[in-house]
Amino acid sequence: MNRLDQQMNFIMEVDKLKEITRQTYISSGKRLENDAEHSYSLALMVALLSEHAEEKIDVAKTMLMVLIHDIVEIDAGDTYAYDDVLNQTKREREVLAADRIFNLLPEDQAVYIRSLWEEFEEGQTPEAKFALTVDKIQPLTLNDHTKGRAWREHEVHLDKVMKRNEHTPDGSQVLWEFAKSIIDKNVANGNIKS
Amino acid sequence: MNRLDQQMNFIMEVDKLKEITRQTYISSGKRLENDAEHSYSLALMVALLSEHAEEKIDVAKTMLMVLIHDIVEIDAGDTYAYDDVLNQTKREREVLAADRIFNLLPEDQAVYIRSLWEEFEEGQTPEAKFALTVDKIQPLTLNDHTKGRAWREHEVHLDKVMKRNEHTPDGSQVLWEFAKSIIDKNVANGNIKS
Ligand SMILES: [Ca+2]
Repeated sequence: MNRLDQQMNFIMEVDKLKEITRQTYISSGKRLENDAEHSYSLALMVALLSEHAEEKIDVAKTMLMVLIHDIVEIDAGDTYAYDDVLNQTKREREVLAADRIFNLLPEDQAVYIRSLWEEFEEGQTPEAKFALTVDKIQPLTLNDHTKGRAWREHEVHLDKVMKRNEHTPDGSQVLWEFAKSIIDKNVANGNIKS
Repeated sequence: MNRLDQQMNFIMEVDKLKEITRQTYISSGKRLENDAEHSYSLALMVALLSEHAEEKIDVAKTMLMVLIHDIVEIDAGDTYAYDDVLNQTKREREVLAADRIFNLLPEDQAVYIRSLWEEFEEGQTPEAKFALTVDKIQPLTLNDHTKGRAWREHEVHLDKVMKRNEHTPDGSQVLWEFAKSIIDKNVANGNIKS
């Protein structure tokens, strides 16, 4: 198979992200968001909010990182952040997915995209830290905009929200302060249990 | 309003792209695609297919260009490529939308994103040419993958497809040849009328 056919097969496979449903409602509240839409929002946020990153980031690399960060969910499914049981097997399921899906690409791109996904998962570089921060902030803003519905439906507690966001300040102190004000407001109005 | 609040208001406004429906079916054929999903696919294609661009492109700039290229449709709606009546008022409706939506951003970003959108619309730079090519190729691949359903529902004729793609080779001869083979196949099997 030639290089372009491999690339196009990968892009068609990734189209399946449009049917991986998340636990967050889109801004109108009319339905749940999917992984392609979530990744779209993250890429736009990376481009527009990079000035708030704690350390200088390579914006193009970070945009691609967020575009590919959820592709493994095509096989592994979206593991809801607050589902403890599913989270125990998350890594194993996602590695198998990475092996299959990224290898649809020509080898050089397969290796690069795989390394970009591992970098995101490890969360150590400036780009990965900022990508992880934006990945946490985006659903917070949607949950806030939709009157906390996802939090209420799942009876989410403050300690879990804070635990999930323990590294959010690492990517951007400014974005964390923004997130914290959203969290505080939603604890005060009872959307998040304390 | 501070800078971050302006940026976040813009990002929340752009969330509405998730409810602007296009005339193309997603790869499973289960429903129509929306503008956020379409833009997601374009950004991924720009990142993975830039080697096929006719002239060297700034990948980060082109990714952002495709992420923002349909934002005006939040107010102006998706104008189907083959709807001649609506296309007469498209530009006017989209300029009004650009004036409102891009100006939600801090002024420097509003000016930049507006110029990026105008650059896309004018289609003269290497980045705009490649963005336009990918914007045309992506629905072709989905229409092909979903057995030409969108073409058949709209009884699309070959001359309109070719007219719509008259500048597609300018961004990438290689991608245009790929697209041409899809078009030829779908003329042969009757999905596109000739
Ligand atoms: Ca995820």
